[in-house]
Amino acid sequence: MPPELRRDPFTGRWVIVAPERGKRPLQDRRQETKRPNVERRSDCAFCAGNELMTPPEVLAYREFGTGSNEPGWRVRVVPNMYPALSPELESITLSDRPFESMAGFGYHEVVIETPFHYRHMGLMERNEVEEVLWAWRDRTLSMEADPRIQHVLIFKNHGYEAGATLEHPHSQIVAASVVPQRVAEEMAMAQEYHAETGRCLWCDVTSLEIEQRKRLVTENDLFVALCPYASTSSYEVSIVPKRHQTGLSELRSHDVGALASILRDVLRRLYIGLDDPPYNLWLHQAPARLASAQLYHWHLEIVPRLSKWAGYEGGSGFYINQVPPEEAANFLRGVSI
Amino acid sequence: MPPELRRDPFTGRWVIVAPERGKRPLQDRRQETKRPNVERRSDCAFCAGNELMTPPEVLAYREFGTGSNEPGWRVRVVPNMYPALSPELESITLSDRPFESMAGFGYHEVVIETPFHYRHMGLMERNEVEEVLWAWRDRTLSMEADPRIQHVLIFKNHGYEAGATLEHPHSQIVAASVVPQRVAEEMAMAQEYHAETGRCLWCDVTSLEIEQRKRLVTENDLFVALCPYASTSSYEVSIVPKRHQTGLSELRSHDVGALASILRDVLRRLYIGLDDPPYNLWLHQAPARLASAQLYHWHLEIVPRLSKWAGYEGGSGFYINQVPPEEAANFLRGVSI
Repeated sequence: MPPELRRDPFTGRWVIVAPERGKRPLQDRRQETKRPNVERRSDCAFCAGNELMTPPEVLAYREFGTGSNEPGWRVRVVPNMYPALSPELESITLSDRPFESMAGFGYHEVVIETPFHYRHMGLMERNEVEEVLWAWRDRTLSMEADPRIQHVLIFKNHGYEAGATLEHPHSQIVAASVVPQRVAEEMAMAQEYHAETGRCLWCDVTSLEIEQRKRLVTENDLFVALCPYASTSSYEVSIVPKRHQTGLSELRSHDVGALASILRDVLRRLYIGLDDPPYNLWLHQAPARLASAQLYHWHLEIVPRLSKWAGYEGGSGFYINQVPPEEAANFLRGVSI
Repeated sequence: MPPELRRDPFTGRWVIVAPERGKRPLQDRRQETKRPNVERRSDCAFCAGNELMTPPEVLAYREFGTGSNEPGWRVRVVPNMYPALSPELESITLSDRPFESMAGFGYHEVVIETPFHYRHMGLMERNEVEEVLWAWRDRTLSMEADPRIQHVLIFKNHGYEAGATLEHPHSQIVAASVVPQRVAEEMAMAQEYHAETGRCLWCDVTSLEIEQRKRLVTENDLFVALCPYASTSSYEVSIVPKRHQTGLSELRSHDVGALASILRDVLRRLYIGLDDPPYNLWLHQAPARLASAQLYHWHLEIVPRLSKWAGYEGGSGFYINQVPPEEAANFLRGVSI
C-alpha cells in the first residue's frame, strides 16, 4: 500500500498511514567507547565511504573535486529509504468526508549532518552546524517551489528514546500537501491575536520574555533561547528569531551564523547539563502558500526525553510537566559550556 | 510549588506544572513468574493488606462486614499520592494573557482495580471489570457535582512503555477546571458537523463503520469496538456506545454490563494477539458544564505502545501510523479469545 494521508473526522488531525516504514531495520547499539571525531562504521549507510548504501544524493556540500555520491562531503541530503510520503504519487483526493483521504504525496528526505558516526551537534564546530542549517534552508526553498507543497517541516530525533532508529547524526525534512495540526493551531492563535491587536503574538511574547528574563537560557543579537512558559516537557527549549520572520527562506548569511551559534550553545548545555539526553527538535515554519502565513513567526522547539513521564500527555491533550520552566531555565543558564 | 495550570499562548493547550510528581518512586520490575490470581506483594501499596500505605480510601466495594482501609475490598479508590492537581487549592486565576495561569485545583484519584498484583483486565472475570466501571462512573458523578469541575478524564496506563510507574492494575481519574485540548478539538468538530447536518458526528460515523464492517473488531447490542479510520497508532481501538450518550453518568446497569463485556473482549484480543502489549486507555466524556456538551458522544480509546515509532508524532502534529486500521481490525477479529 502506498502512503496515504487521512484526516481524522473527530479532531481534524492529519495522519500518515505508511506501511513501508514498518520495514526499517533497527541498528544495533554499540557499547564500546565512542570516538566522536574519527569513527566511521562499515555498516552505517550515513558514514563516509558508504554513499552507495543510500539513494542518490539530492544535495551535498563537498570538497572541491570530489564527485556525487563519493566521499569528500561535509553535509549530504538523500531521500529517505522508508519514506512516509512520496514525490512519485500524484497529489489527489482519494475520498471525501467523513473518511477524507489523499494520496501520500510529498517529500521525505534525510540530512546527513556529518561524515562521522559519533558527533553530537552540540560538540560540532560552529561552521559545521552552519552547513546543516544551510542544507535545511536550501531544501526548504526547493520543496516550497513545488506548488503542491503546503508545508515544510524539519525535525531531528537524537537517541533511541526520542525515536531515532539510526545513531548517525541526521535530521529529516517532510514536505506535505497539508499543514500539520500543531502548526495550524499556532496559526489560528496568531491570527486571533493579530485581529485583536494588530501585532505578532510571537514578537510580543518574545519581547516580554526578554524583558522578564526568568525563562531565558541565552541570547544573541538575532535570536533568543528560552524555556517556554507552558512547556509540555521538562527542560524544553525554544529558539526564536528576535525579528519577525516566517521561515528559513528569509534567513540571510548573518542569520544563519547567529542561529548556528545559539543552537550549538543550547545543545551543548543540554549535552553537558543533562548528560546527553535523547531529544526531539522541531522547526516550525509558516505554511508555504497561505496569504495569512505572514503572521507566522518561525521557531525551533527542542524537547529532551528524560523519562517516560516527562511531557507525559496525561490522557488526550493534558500535558503534565514536572520541572517549572523558570527552574529549567535557571539550571540551563548555569551550565558551564 | 503547588500544582499550576498554564495555558500555552501559542496553541491554547493547557499544561499542568506539577513538580511534586517528580518525586514518585519507580517500582522494581520482577523477573519471576507471575501468578495472576493469587500474588500479593508486601511492598506494593495497592495490594490487599497494605491499605495503610495509601491515603484513606474515598470509595471501595467490599465484602460485607469489612471496615474502611482494611482488606476485603474488590475495587478501591484513593487520592493519588503525587497528585497533578489538588482539591485543596482554590480554583482561582493567577495571571492573565499572554502568561495565563490558574491554581492547579482539581481531583486526581487512583482506582485500584483488583486486590491482586498481577491481574490483567483482559483476563479478569466480567463482573470484576464491571465493578471497575462502576467505580469510574461513581467517581465521575461525585466529581462533576463540584461546580468548579469542567471535565472528568479517566485513563489507564498499562506497562512501563506506556508510562505506568506501578505494576498493580490501576486506572486514574483527573477532574480539572479546564477542558483538555483533545476533547475541546472533538467538541469543536462535533459542533461544526451538527451545525451543518443537525446530527451527531459520532453517531453518523459509527453507523457507517458498522455498515462497512472493514474496521470493526467486535460489537454487541450496545457498543461497537473498531480501529479508527485515522488511527494515530498501530492497533488502536475505540469503543463507542451505539446510542448517543455524552458520558458515564448516562450509563444504566445493562450499559455497564455490555461495556464490561466488550472492554474485556478487546483487552483480551490485545493481550493474546500482541503478547500483552503496553497500552494507554483514555475515556473521553463530555465537558461537565457546557450547554453544547449534549453534542458530545463519549468513547474509550485504547492505544497499544508497540514501539517507539508506532504512533510517532513525526514532528508536531503529524502522526505516522505503520499499520492500516483495516489490517489491524482484520488481525484483531481473527484473534481467538
